Amino acid sequence: MGFGCCKKRKNSQELTDVERAIEIVINNFHCYAVKGRKECITPNELRDLVGQRLPHLAESVGTLDDKIECHGDGDEAKLQFGEYWSVMGDAAKGCRVTKSKK
Amino acid sequence: MGFGCCKKRKNSQELTDVERAIEIVINNFHCYAVKGRKECITPNELRDLVGQRLPHLAESVGTLDDKIECHGDGDEAKLQFGEYWSVMGDAAKGCRVTKSKK
Repeated sequence: MGFGCCKKRKNSQELTDVERAIEIVINNFHCYAVKGRKECITPNELRDLVGQRLPHLAESVGTLDDKIECHGDGDEAKLQFGEYWSVMGDAAKGCRVTKSKK
Repeated sequence: MGFGCCKKRKNSQELTDVERAIEIVINNFHCYAVKGRKECITPNELRDLVGQRLPHLAESVGTLDDKIECHGDGDEAKLQFGEYWSVMGDAAKGCRVTKSKK
C-alpha cells in the first residue's frame, strides 16, 4: 500500500529542493492516512509507513512503538499530522547521530 | 550562502524518496548552521534559510519571527535541530492548509 499514490504538484519545478522534500514528506502522510481520510493516521498505518518508506532510517526510530502505542488501539487511534512530523523528526535525529558516528 | 554546500550521501540511490527528502531537510540545516558548526543554528541563520530555501512556503511560517525571537539574540542564540525541525513542520502544516483550501 501507499506506493505511487501521491499526487504531484503541477508547478513542482518551481519549488526549491527543500520545498520539494517537505512536499514529499507531506504526500507520504496523505498516502498512508487512509482511514483518517488524509487528516490523521492510525498507529498501524504509521508502522506500515515507517517499515516500507523508511527502511534505512527505521532503526533510528527505535522508540516509535513506545510513542505510538500510548495513543491507543492500532487501528482506531488517530495521530495528527504534527505527531507524524515529530516521528519523522526522530528518524532525522537518529540519522544525524548515525552519520556523525561514522 | 548555503547553496550547493551540502555533501551527498554516496549510496543515496538506495534510499527511498522519503528518506532522500528527510536527508535533504537535514543537509539544509547543516548548510546554514555555520556558526554552531552544524550542531545548532542561530535565529538569523534560520531566517536566511527560510527566506532563501522556502520562498514559497515562507508565508506559511508566519509565526516564525515570534518563535525565534524568544530564543534571544539573532546572532548568538542557538537553536537545536529539533527546533529547526519544528519550524519546518510549521511550514509543512501551512502548506497542507493552503493546498486544502484550493
